[in-house]
Amino acid sequence: MRTPAYDDLHGRHQRLHRLSHLQAITSWDQSANMPPKGNEARSLALAEMQGLLHELATDTALKDLLARAEAEPLDDVQRANLREMRRVRRASNALPQKLVQALSLANSRCEHAWRTQRPANNWAGYLENFREVVRLAREEAQCLADSSGLGLYDALMDRYEPGMRAAEVDRVFGDLRQWLPDLIREVEARQAGEPTLQPVGPFASAAQRALGHGAMRLLGFDFEAGRLDESAHPFCGGVPEDVRMTTRYSESNFLQSLMGTVHETGHGRYEQNLPRPWLGQPIANARSMALHESQSLSFEMQLGGHPAFAALLLPLVRQQLGEQPAFEERNFARLLTRVSPGLIRVEADEVTYPAHVILRYEIERALIEGHIEAEDIPALWDEKMMELLGLDTRGNFKDGCMQDVHWGCGLFGYFPCYTLGAMYAAQWFAAMRRAMPDLDARLAAGELGAVFDWLRVNIWSQGSRWETPELAKRASGEALNPAHFRAHLQSRYLA
Amino acid sequence: MRTPAYDDLHGRHQRLHRLSHLQAITSWDQSANMPPKGNEARSLALAEMQGLLHELATDTALKDLLARAEAEPLDDVQRANLREMRRVRRASNALPQKLVQALSLANSRCEHAWRTQRPANNWAGYLENFREVVRLAREEAQCLADSSGLGLYDALMDRYEPGMRAAEVDRVFGDLRQWLPDLIREVEARQAGEPTLQPVGPFASAAQRALGHGAMRLLGFDFEAGRLDESAHPFCGGVPEDVRMTTRYSESNFLQSLMGTVHETGHGRYEQNLPRPWLGQPIANARSMALHESQSLSFEMQLGGHPAFAALLLPLVRQQLGEQPAFEERNFARLLTRVSPGLIRVEADEVTYPAHVILRYEIERALIEGHIEAEDIPALWDEKMMELLGLDTRGNFKDGCMQDVHWGCGLFGYFPCYTLGAMYAAQWFAAMRRAMPDLDARLAAGELGAVFDWLRVNIWSQGSRWETPELAKRASGEALNPAHFRAHLQSRYLA
Repeated sequence: MRTPAYDDLHGRHQRLHRLSHLQAITSWDQSANMPPKGNEARSLALAEMQGLLHELATDTALKDLLARAEAEPLDDVQRANLREMRRVRRASNALPQKLVQALSLANSRCEHAWRTQRPANNWAGYLENFREVVRLAREEAQCLADSSGLGLYDALMDRYEPGMRAAEVDRVFGDLRQWLPDLIREVEARQAGEPTLQPVGPFASAAQRALGHGAMRLLGFDFEAGRLDESAHPFCGGVPEDVRMTTRYSESNFLQSLMGTVHETGHGRYEQNLPRPWLGQPIANARSMALHESQSLSFEMQLGGHPAFAALLLPLVRQQLGEQPAFEERNFARLLTRVSPGLIRVEADEVTYPAHVILRYEIERALIEGHIEAEDIPALWDEKMMELLGLDTRGNFKDGCMQDVHWGCGLFGYFPCYTLGAMYAAQWFAAMRRAMPDLDARLAAGELGAVFDWLRVNIWSQGSRWETPELAKRASGEALNPAHFRAHLQSRYLA
Repeated sequence: MRTPAYDDLHGRHQRLHRLSHLQAITSWDQSANMPPKGNEARSLALAEMQGLLHELATDTALKDLLARAEAEPLDDVQRANLREMRRVRRASNALPQKLVQALSLANSRCEHAWRTQRPANNWAGYLENFREVVRLAREEAQCLADSSGLGLYDALMDRYEPGMRAAEVDRVFGDLRQWLPDLIREVEARQAGEPTLQPVGPFASAAQRALGHGAMRLLGFDFEAGRLDESAHPFCGGVPEDVRMTTRYSESNFLQSLMGTVHETGHGRYEQNLPRPWLGQPIANARSMALHESQSLSFEMQLGGHPAFAALLLPLVRQQLGEQPAFEERNFARLLTRVSPGLIRVEADEVTYPAHVILRYEIERALIEGHIEAEDIPALWDEKMMELLGLDTRGNFKDGCMQDVHWGCGLFGYFPCYTLGAMYAAQWFAAMRRAMPDLDARLAAGELGAVFDWLRVNIWSQGSRWETPELAKRASGEALNPAHFRAHLQSRYLA
């Protein structure tokens, strides 16, 4: 049975995939390797490529090809791929090429300057680039909203979490806001009776690097198909065949980098295990960013806070960093489940983390919808940090609104994915425990493979085969159900 | 005065330049960073980009644009740029896109496999990929010859050394073959009376890395616009705004990596100092590969073997590697000018180096012209090594014909540039000494800047402003004159 239109589309997406490969690796390089004077040329080169990819993804021939492919005798997988192809085209067509290039350039410039502005607490300097980023992001939101019929913020969020709407986020986060502050207080009160020794540094970067590699091996990362390097803001980039994770080392706090690496390893294994036969086609992509975060948080939080994982990690810690009282077994497990409101999102424990996300969600939504301006962010940040976590950040931009690179890179609508991901991760582990009642015993025996196998079968290997609610139902019997997250926190911290 | 056709061409070359940036960085990454399972996808991505760049460089609109630009009121620089644009188009049009992609794929596969095949001395395995590389290189030579009217080998060499012909190489190398073997014997006999202590290792990679960085700083490399990393075969890649040099470390022999780094720094500074106002246009490119090698060899050989440079390098060596008898001042200077026939080209001293090049030139020319096949290389290699340097390489493929990656990457016609570059370097230093009679005194006082300034003014800043003979005349008063190379060797080694 001949499918000429589908085959043509298939070839075009293969081409997009290959060219995107170069973009992915050079973007990673920009953060991990590039010397400062290379930035202007790199930004121009990436903007050029962004424009080219956009040109290819909006080729006027696509409309007709998609319509003709629809009528061809396709199997279910090809139909799902066609659905994703349509999504890619819709999103690409919503934006004029000029805007795409302007976004790439402005975001890249702002991110690069941020690297030195953040340590210098230079909000005024940052603002100069950031205003342009906000202006372009609003223009982007308007274009996406016009083409999709969604609201401004929904239109941005839909790029990362297709199908998710602010109304549902409001519902889920609204519920969270009700019980989270009390739960934090309860856990703090309980942990106050369990004093925990802090590790005493300094911890040499080289030893931390070896420890990070050891943890990645424990978690099954394939070093023949990926690397770990350093960058100002840890991320997981590259391509499925060559995953580029980054971390950063603080000599005074090794747990931050270690657990950051565990987090990124979750992203990395998802990418490394996306369905190989479909690679190069949209159906092979990770389903969504909340799903992606559900993998990193399955690793960092669900596994990372599990007593069995602490027991597996501890020998590696001792081997690289030596012995010290904080590395006593029960104390070490406590360190990994310590709950304490802090300024920095990426250092937050899983109980206070949602507060950081709620704050960002509320600010970025107001910013995109035009209720506030970039200048208003620090005051709002202070106010919400005080309200949600009781912390004062006045004048401390670098540990306040400049701590994340997301906004500077034009990533608006992404933050909710972290907490949605935490909820999905809790839902996956609840499903695993139903399927494997002996899961905790198996983890205690060091068999992490039980978790990886479940994730591979139910999440990783599925790519974008199903839309998110359907994927969740097939994996766990139901669509997103935040009750599992609450139950998880109560069982781990208050049982 | 309006120049619409020229402006259009200018924009197109800017685009080519930006997209090539991504290709340059990912190619460097492929050698310096990429894990093995990433190679297939990377090769496909680079081949796709190669095809795309080829598509852009052969756009049918270019012919008309070039003709129209010719009639526009251009200044001299624009006219020179137009000349280079025409050269780019001619070279690109000579090759069908399918061949360009096939070359990229075959070369990239062969290079990647070579990395493990060379240490395993696996000539049979290498041959499997290499036969296809040779087949395609011959096809390429035929296409280039058809379009240029040049001979097969000339057509390949013209890509690296525009205007150079095998007849001139024969003349220059023929002369060299006459006096070089005697000169090697004379120098060996003289040095036999000056026993030299060899440094005793092991030398840790980290200390060698620090030493390499120190040497690069001494040589004025701009670390804000470049890096030094590691790869199996040292090279200088990246882009002028972000130069990516590589080296490799042997724990038993630090001089190999150190002087390799000095060599690549010459390439690096040429790239870093290409004319900024023209960047993105063909006129801003390095003039030719012999000119490029004249820079690396100005650094590695002209400076590297100069007693003043040895005196500047020694404190850095002692600082990183400690004290030992071989680091006595006169002994160290002798180490840098030791002449000894050896198997490995990149480890060769400047006196025996041309023998390695002559051997490769003769073999690759016969291979491309179809007088021999890939299978015949090892026997010919043995024969010529014995004849030129008195060394036996039978069965030792890894230190024989598999030592270089050039052929595996499809780089035929490049090797002569090394020795032509050595000749140009000698010619530049002769010109410097005429212009600055106190040059050696200034070098002895640590003023390397005198050399850098001359090179910047006469070579680096000129980009492709002039064709090679004209550039050489403007810089040194004459076109290529090999007599300076002979005079240099005699004065340094036999005076």
